[in-house]
Amino acid sequence: MRRIASLLISVATMTGVAALMSPASGNADEAAAPYVTEKPAGYRDWKWIASAHEEGKLNSLGAVLGNPVAVKAFRAGTIPFPDGTIIAALHYQAVSSEENDKIFGQKQSIVPGSPTNVQFMVKDSKKYAATGGWGFGHFNADGKPVDAAFMKPCFACHAQFKAHDLVFTQYAP
Amino acid sequence: MRRIASLLISVATMTGVAALMSPASGNADEAAAPYVTEKPAGYRDWKWIASAHEEGKLNSLGAVLGNPVAVKAFRAGTIPFPDGTIIAALHYQAVSSEENDKIFGQKQSIVPGSPTNVQFMVKDSKKYAATGGWGFGHFNADGKPVDAAFMKPCFACHAQFKAHDLVFTQYAP
Repeated sequence: MRRIASLLISVATMTGVAALMSPASGNADEAAAPYVTEKPAGYRDWKWIASAHEEGKLNSLGAVLGNPVAVKAFRAGTIPFPDGTIIAALHYQAVSSEENDKIFGQKQSIVPGSPTNVQFMVKDSKKYAATGGWGFGHFNADGKPVDAAFMKPCFACHAQFKAHDLVFTQYAP
Repeated sequence: MRRIASLLISVATMTGVAALMSPASGNADEAAAPYVTEKPAGYRDWKWIASAHEEGKLNSLGAVLGNPVAVKAFRAGTIPFPDGTIIAALHYQAVSSEENDKIFGQKQSIVPGSPTNVQFMVKDSKKYAATGGWGFGHFNADGKPVDAAFMKPCFACHAQFKAHDLVFTQYAP
């Protein structure tokens, strides 16, 4: 509970208390947890937006997929993204493929290893008004969502990408 | 012409002359160029199979997408892949995202830069009998296919992946 309170205080400080005082939904849980707590259905079938390799501590290789609303917006360059946009980031351990490297004759091939997590950004300008219109979600490899404390930095970090409506990923043509 | 002749001799040596003596199609050009010379339609809308980062000289970040036949086979682990399978590998320069790194506070983020090429593997066990049932294709960023000499090493290299029916990429769940 302290963690949730901390999140609320933090979010309220950043974006103004007004949005939290009038939650779009009557559901108390949703108001208390302004992030995505259920995996959007069917995301593994969505279209590919781009790939990304995060080196260093994250050591992550993955892909960003988008639902039809997201894909249309990415392709048209629509900013801000319209309500209904859902962006999924599928992350895996970045591992060297010894099998590939052997054939290439050199160390070069980095491929997805074990899944680590799936993250979502869900655009709903009313429901997630307190976090720039985006609901953030993070589900570990076991499919379970993380807690509010884990989700706390998402908005603050993404908010630095105001020019792209808080979205890091750019469409790969 | 010398290049095409060289390819034919090379392929014939590797896989036996018989297959080339009885091309599945009556089209002389197809028999003379046993690789993919037209981009399959709609591939950018196909589902995501996996991402890959090739370091070193290739310096490539991209994604492998599959048509519906391919996706079904990858998910079911079907080997060999059935006729009708088309696999697309979309390649881009692997570039550091200064914008992302600035926010992360460290150098870590590698994203797709300019498109470099798109490669295809088309399964047609009759048409491409001479190359393991696969037609290989490579289209530069300008959309134009490469010549026969460029395509020559494709089969020899992929043939080392016999256990995966000549396919490097493995499905990212």
